[in-house]
Amino acid sequence: MAPVDFEAFVDELASVSGTTILPFFRSALVAEDKSGGVNFDPVTEADRGAEAVIRQKIRAMFPSHGVMGEEYGSERLDAEFVWVLDPIDGTKSFISGMVGWGTLIGLLRNGQPCYGMMHQPFTRERFSGDGGSAKYRGPGGERVMKTRSCASLSEAVLYTTTPRLMAPPEQKRFAVIEEKVKLSRYGGDCYAYAMLAMGLVDLVIEASLQPYDICALIPIVEGAGGVITTWDGGPAQAGGRIVAAGDARVHAAALSLLQAEY
Amino acid sequence: MAPVDFEAFVDELASVSGTTILPFFRSALVAEDKSGGVNFDPVTEADRGAEAVIRQKIRAMFPSHGVMGEEYGSERLDAEFVWVLDPIDGTKSFISGMVGWGTLIGLLRNGQPCYGMMHQPFTRERFSGDGGSAKYRGPGGERVMKTRSCASLSEAVLYTTTPRLMAPPEQKRFAVIEEKVKLSRYGGDCYAYAMLAMGLVDLVIEASLQPYDICALIPIVEGAGGVITTWDGGPAQAGGRIVAAGDARVHAAALSLLQAEY
Repeated sequence: MAPVDFEAFVDELASVSGTTILPFFRSALVAEDKSGGVNFDPVTEADRGAEAVIRQKIRAMFPSHGVMGEEYGSERLDAEFVWVLDPIDGTKSFISGMVGWGTLIGLLRNGQPCYGMMHQPFTRERFSGDGGSAKYRGPGGERVMKTRSCASLSEAVLYTTTPRLMAPPEQKRFAVIEEKVKLSRYGGDCYAYAMLAMGLVDLVIEASLQPYDICALIPIVEGAGGVITTWDGGPAQAGGRIVAAGDARVHAAALSLLQAEY
Repeated sequence: MAPVDFEAFVDELASVSGTTILPFFRSALVAEDKSGGVNFDPVTEADRGAEAVIRQKIRAMFPSHGVMGEEYGSERLDAEFVWVLDPIDGTKSFISGMVGWGTLIGLLRNGQPCYGMMHQPFTRERFSGDGGSAKYRGPGGERVMKTRSCASLSEAVLYTTTPRLMAPPEQKRFAVIEEKVKLSRYGGDCYAYAMLAMGLVDLVIEASLQPYDICALIPIVEGAGGVITTWDGGPAQAGGRIVAAGDARVHAAALSLLQAEY
């Protein structure tokens, strides 16, 4: 097989999924969806359509690779390379017309995240990383992404999608941290991790994540110099309760409060 | 004086303020701001720069008009026409790199909102209205904005920037509504009103707003067919506690719960 331009391939996955999703964004179809998914659900249609075109391209280019996706389940998870896909991360932003959603395309090698991209087709932004470096491309050009220095929680900007996704004991731990940070904001989904990689957010804390919610973001956050683990300090790729920080000191401070007994 | 192309003039205000603000968005200057405004504060710099260029253009074109702005205060508030300006509504989104902020340019005639624009220079979107109609222009083209039909709170998508901006008794009333809606989301600032006008959000409830946070949004929401008042049902242009809905039935339902004693 001829050598594959890997970056160009992931770019193509992002482009075709964006082309599939965008007609559904802010469309009358979305606005009219009051069925709660009982009848036609345009978000699910967009999600499925995008995952289908991504899977088709992966199958054609890398037939031996595995795939794990939100919409079409898992295949060949024991392969050396496994793609982890979430076509629309942040569906609640999506259905509300807000732009804080993105397409997540991650790649595991032997179970370890090795490449990830977050694509926002409406704003035409691509955030990508391989664990060693991270890159932003958008309307204003291209730049290397680096997390910023942040010595303590009292200087930190914190994001979570919403504390309502946490169980009550998790909410308690989260609230302790929330009281210590400089600024706490809700919403954001995958965009919050991208802004952490860009050095504009210091801490993201979430619970109840699926592997496809987080796998693509790990090589971006780590590539930009950040730290991302579970609340127990374990590897993040299985999802669950996640804490990401741009500065290891803030990660350590958050981790110790997330592990404390209250 | 030759007749003025009013829409073109407001477009120009939006363009020059966007050009002033964008270099500060996601810049290293913003990322490095840990001073809390003690030293150089790039958000304030962007805010002030944008308001200064807008005021300069208004003064040159309409020397008799009044101006009320977040950064440079008020002048000639007794004039027939008064401009109401907030160069960066949603500064917390702005400093975090999120795109849920916008530039608000409103115009009062004899104290009544008669025209408003919300401009998002990064996404290149303009939402405008005159109370009778409302219009969207963005990367995907131009369209008329109409709020959507929503019969009851149980079908409604609700936004608020954060309940933390409400006093405890206000939070209680808000929580009652939050329990009844289909979906409650935090964040959004001016963008939530724009999405309400576009028919993707049904209800926005906020407290502690300034006149410049809301004046520009009133003719957009009303122009799209929505209803926007204070929690007491009074006119919204003075700010304070605001409730906006795309459907009058949802507005009435929210109003009665916001006015109840608990």
